[in-house]
Amino acid sequence: MNDITTPPAPCAPEDVRRIACVGAGVIGGGWVAHYLARGYDVTAWDPAPDAEHKLRRLVDAAWPALTQLGLAEGASPDRLTVTATLQEAVADAQFVQESAPEKLELKRDLLAQLDAAAPAGVVIASSTSGYPMTDMQTEATDPGRLVVGHPFNPPYLIPLVEVVGGDRTAPHAVTWTSRFYEVAGKSVITMASEVPGFIANRLQEALWREALHMVANGEATVKEIDDSITEGPGLRWAFMGPMLTFALAGGEGGMAHMLDHFGPSLKSPWTRLEAPELDKELYDAVVAGCDDAADGRTIADLVAERDQGVIDVLRATGRLPQQRTAQEDTK
Amino acid sequence: MNDITTPPAPCAPEDVRRIACVGAGVIGGGWVAHYLARGYDVTAWDPAPDAEHKLRRLVDAAWPALTQLGLAEGASPDRLTVTATLQEAVADAQFVQESAPEKLELKRDLLAQLDAAAPAGVVIASSTSGYPMTDMQTEATDPGRLVVGHPFNPPYLIPLVEVVGGDRTAPHAVTWTSRFYEVAGKSVITMASEVPGFIANRLQEALWREALHMVANGEATVKEIDDSITEGPGLRWAFMGPMLTFALAGGEGGMAHMLDHFGPSLKSPWTRLEAPELDKELYDAVVAGCDDAADGRTIADLVAERDQGVIDVLRATGRLPQQRTAQEDTK
Repeated sequence: MNDITTPPAPCAPEDVRRIACVGAGVIGGGWVAHYLARGYDVTAWDPAPDAEHKLRRLVDAAWPALTQLGLAEGASPDRLTVTATLQEAVADAQFVQESAPEKLELKRDLLAQLDAAAPAGVVIASSTSGYPMTDMQTEATDPGRLVVGHPFNPPYLIPLVEVVGGDRTAPHAVTWTSRFYEVAGKSVITMASEVPGFIANRLQEALWREALHMVANGEATVKEIDDSITEGPGLRWAFMGPMLTFALAGGEGGMAHMLDHFGPSLKSPWTRLEAPELDKELYDAVVAGCDDAADGRTIADLVAERDQGVIDVLRATGRLPQQRTAQEDTK
Repeated sequence: MNDITTPPAPCAPEDVRRIACVGAGVIGGGWVAHYLARGYDVTAWDPAPDAEHKLRRLVDAAWPALTQLGLAEGASPDRLTVTATLQEAVADAQFVQESAPEKLELKRDLLAQLDAAAPAGVVIASSTSGYPMTDMQTEATDPGRLVVGHPFNPPYLIPLVEVVGGDRTAPHAVTWTSRFYEVAGKSVITMASEVPGFIANRLQEALWREALHMVANGEATVKEIDDSITEGPGLRWAFMGPMLTFALAGGEGGMAHMLDHFGPSLKSPWTRLEAPELDKELYDAVVAGCDDAADGRTIADLVAERDQGVIDVLRATGRLPQQRTAQEDTK
């Protein structure tokens, strides 16, 4: 599979000035807003008839938020050019972000067209929500420069981008892309190998599917599902992931104690997703992984961090618990 | 099944002053801290030999956080009494919170013991993470007063409590319990019927199991899993649930457009959990449920709310995106 001919990118990640965004819906438009705010020149193309109008409205709606975050010097919505053709959009680009609808055939064809039109060596990243690049790069002449750069909605606010190549992606293209996103202000996870849905989408897709099952079975309403997250685990997940927060359910014994305590629950029908066998290997991997993630912080440190984090999030979102007390209620 | 003899609770939810917490580990201890901070007198019992020492340490560790949140008048760690027996703990209680280890037989026996020891009519709530009360109330003489009151860790900071009765629970006991938790400063979801794992735990259990599969298969590290949530969807879920945030992925078309766009992805292997069939009934239920949850807010309103929420959460947790720009990098 290693018929890689991709020339090195024409400029260093730090030197990129001109970005093409192909597909300007919610995700593509969000990328446009992000890159404009970071001071890039952006060209955009989308085949929808009212695409430019919608895109400029999205950028305008996002701009106050981006201003709060702090704009790069010279950043302006005026540095957006909407082009009439895909070819014009990418002709002079130093990086291409593809955000077309989530249809495999469409992505395959579009990536091949972008490959044909973009300057040699320029990296083309796909915002796909879950297709492996190996499946999408089949039609391109130079598949080596095709990389997944999967953002979260809205890309101008949520830091995460998952970067991963396909079988025929040049390793230097993956490295270049990860560095480029860092320079562009994103938080990057570079995956060692492809898995459908990458990481965060596999996790949120599991939650989403369980939620759909619950709605389908009349077990919970949409609002109850949302409230159960925002008033519950969602408060912790804004700053401490599910693994470390679960470790804290183990008290001073941490993840090992948590697995001892809740391991048997993996056999319970608490979701429609069957759990893996919690054998010694998995047990050890999870415990060791938590130790790595804790990076020297003790359980007490993590508890203090979590507590402060929840308080800060509750305060920031105007939701400190009611202060009403038993005494006050009878006054 | 309706052989319900539960007398009305001996006092109104607003008049509760004395709470017994049985089981004083991470969750039970967290409840103790919460109730103390809200100004209640708390008795606690736990069979572990060093339980009192650990419990007082947990309360002391939580107190600075609780002080930040604002203590009720007269609230003090000194209003905790650790008793030598279960009977002493509940003898004078007006509400009992059971937080024993997650073992069905143990819960059954303990709830029967608590039922035998607590004053008539006093509600006994179980912190179980997922067992239906129907399965736990089998040994009690008065099952009518046994209710699930499922908190999230730590109960002194995370507002959510899920309340649900079993087949033999008296409806007025459920109503009383929900009102009591509201008075005690919690955010309550009262479920109409039992489902193992309730709502939030079914959702987070699906995510947890997918995460364990990924670790077991070497697809992601523990740290990558955590980072993918805290830098990604977790930022939104602190204030807007997964359903409404997904609706915003549909742009101005909202949830209907999102389902049109991502519906086919339910067939993709993006998690190990099979999705339900997205038939017209489910489609309509999800779209209508989102409309209900939006409660008159337009998509533009929700986008603005989400954007401000993410910014507030990023700022509160010290994680505004890097301000570095392409220009600055080459200065």
